[in-house]
Amino acid sequence: MEVIDRIDAWRKALDGERGAGRRVGIVPTMGALHRGHASLIERARADGPTVGVTVFVNPLQFGPGEDLDRYPRTLAADIELAAAAGATHLFAPSTAEMYPAPPATTVRVVGLAELWDGASRPGHFDGVATVVAKLLSQAGPCHAYFGEKDYQQLCVVRRLVADLDLPAVIVGCPTVREPDGLAVSSRNVFLTPAERAVAPVLHRALDAGADVLAAAGHPDAARATMHAVLAAEPALSVLYAEPVDPDTLQPLRAPLDPGGTARLLLAARLGRTRLIDNRGVTR
Amino acid sequence: MEVIDRIDAWRKALDGERGAGRRVGIVPTMGALHRGHASLIERARADGPTVGVTVFVNPLQFGPGEDLDRYPRTLAADIELAAAAGATHLFAPSTAEMYPAPPATTVRVVGLAELWDGASRPGHFDGVATVVAKLLSQAGPCHAYFGEKDYQQLCVVRRLVADLDLPAVIVGCPTVREPDGLAVSSRNVFLTPAERAVAPVLHRALDAGADVLAAAGHPDAARATMHAVLAAEPALSVLYAEPVDPDTLQPLRAPLDPGGTARLLLAARLGRTRLIDNRGVTR
Repeated sequence: MEVIDRIDAWRKALDGERGAGRRVGIVPTMGALHRGHASLIERARADGPTVGVTVFVNPLQFGPGEDLDRYPRTLAADIELAAAAGATHLFAPSTAEMYPAPPATTVRVVGLAELWDGASRPGHFDGVATVVAKLLSQAGPCHAYFGEKDYQQLCVVRRLVADLDLPAVIVGCPTVREPDGLAVSSRNVFLTPAERAVAPVLHRALDAGADVLAAAGHPDAARATMHAVLAAEPALSVLYAEPVDPDTLQPLRAPLDPGGTARLLLAARLGRTRLIDNRGVTR
Repeated sequence: MEVIDRIDAWRKALDGERGAGRRVGIVPTMGALHRGHASLIERARADGPTVGVTVFVNPLQFGPGEDLDRYPRTLAADIELAAAAGATHLFAPSTAEMYPAPPATTVRVVGLAELWDGASRPGHFDGVATVVAKLLSQAGPCHAYFGEKDYQQLCVVRRLVADLDLPAVIVGCPTVREPDGLAVSSRNVFLTPAERAVAPVLHRALDAGADVLAAAGHPDAARATMHAVLAAEPALSVLYAEPVDPDTLQPLRAPLDPGGTARLLLAARLGRTRLIDNRGVTR
């Protein structure tokens, strides 16, 4: 696996792959790679011969007082994991390489960016959209793999790529879970043992909400069910638990028709850690 | 010359040119092509074998009450002019092809977008930055030719391309002028004969301001000179006349050092028509 830290070398490497007729897949990450990222890399490698992983902790998507400084940085281990999962290239630029001057350009996906996590993290999805536009421009024509774990991010990226005609095909991949159902996340390392024992309730709440929504289609009942399951854990403070349209992320206002699809979005705070999870529902 | 109205066909045509080893130049325009555009096309053709002209009147960059509806649309003549100037491809998508749904994504170049024309045309440069990001993404790796006539736009585009690492080299080209000095512009057709006779005063004001700035370096004296020249034409109402930094477009606050460079920016209203012009100064 080739490890690259300069934009021009990265661009040249991927141009070379395409020039040789090889399809390019990329997996954009903030590092601290885990089994979830490995599943994206494996999927990309199953789809084509060239897989480039990008590792960049993007300051633009962290607000003041958020965990930019304590976000885990584990490049040596990331290189090992990416290579083992089948990556052929890994691009890990410095912040100075990505932003030689404070960037003036902001990409915003209006509508999606202000909802849910965007409401409590103002500017977060602008930072995501901006760095993804930049990473995709650097990479050139490719398939880009994103986890459904960050579902709102996936929607923002899909919309951004469609609106700006970026030459990428976005592939959303299923969330990888621990045996007890907790979604694998780089932030799980912040959980105390007691918090870790509580955390799978998010997944149970989503499953219970999905059962209710699939059965009768009533979003209010699904929301109430999720809140009831979550209320059993007093250490947990719910930020939102909502049945939404799977594309616009707007709350469902009417019952879901048979055959209709929805997404359940959930965020909660557990001690110092903010956890998110989601799942799809087809009635 | 190949005329194309679909994004996928345009992308495929330019990919084919690059695949055959030919450098691609593009000239993004809103149509109503004139000698100024012809000079961009000729320059691009002198630089390389493939020149694609885009013709799209971008609704995003017109504000409410601006001249979107009366902006001249002359596709048949544009095709003739582009072919005569040496273009090999012309891309003229419909609004529905460019924006199949109302776009949610906005690209903003903070700092540059709010100054000068951005102050009186809120959202204008967001519309420019968004459509240029989209046009450059569609076109893929290329040299892209823009006129210095729209100097603030050129600065916005340069910054956008640098910040997002779009795979384009931006080439700024000199303003083309009528024999009496008036900058060639699509909007000149709106001028009455009396207004047309007055309009060259913009160019004379710029030249007078440049002489003063080059001689002693004092921005206040240059600004005063421009205003004095313009005041001779009571039909004209000055919007701004400013010596600025050529990259940030911030007003010059200190005298220009010998060897230093500046830009003089000028905008004025003449009847219903808004005219802009600018020129560089090296002391």
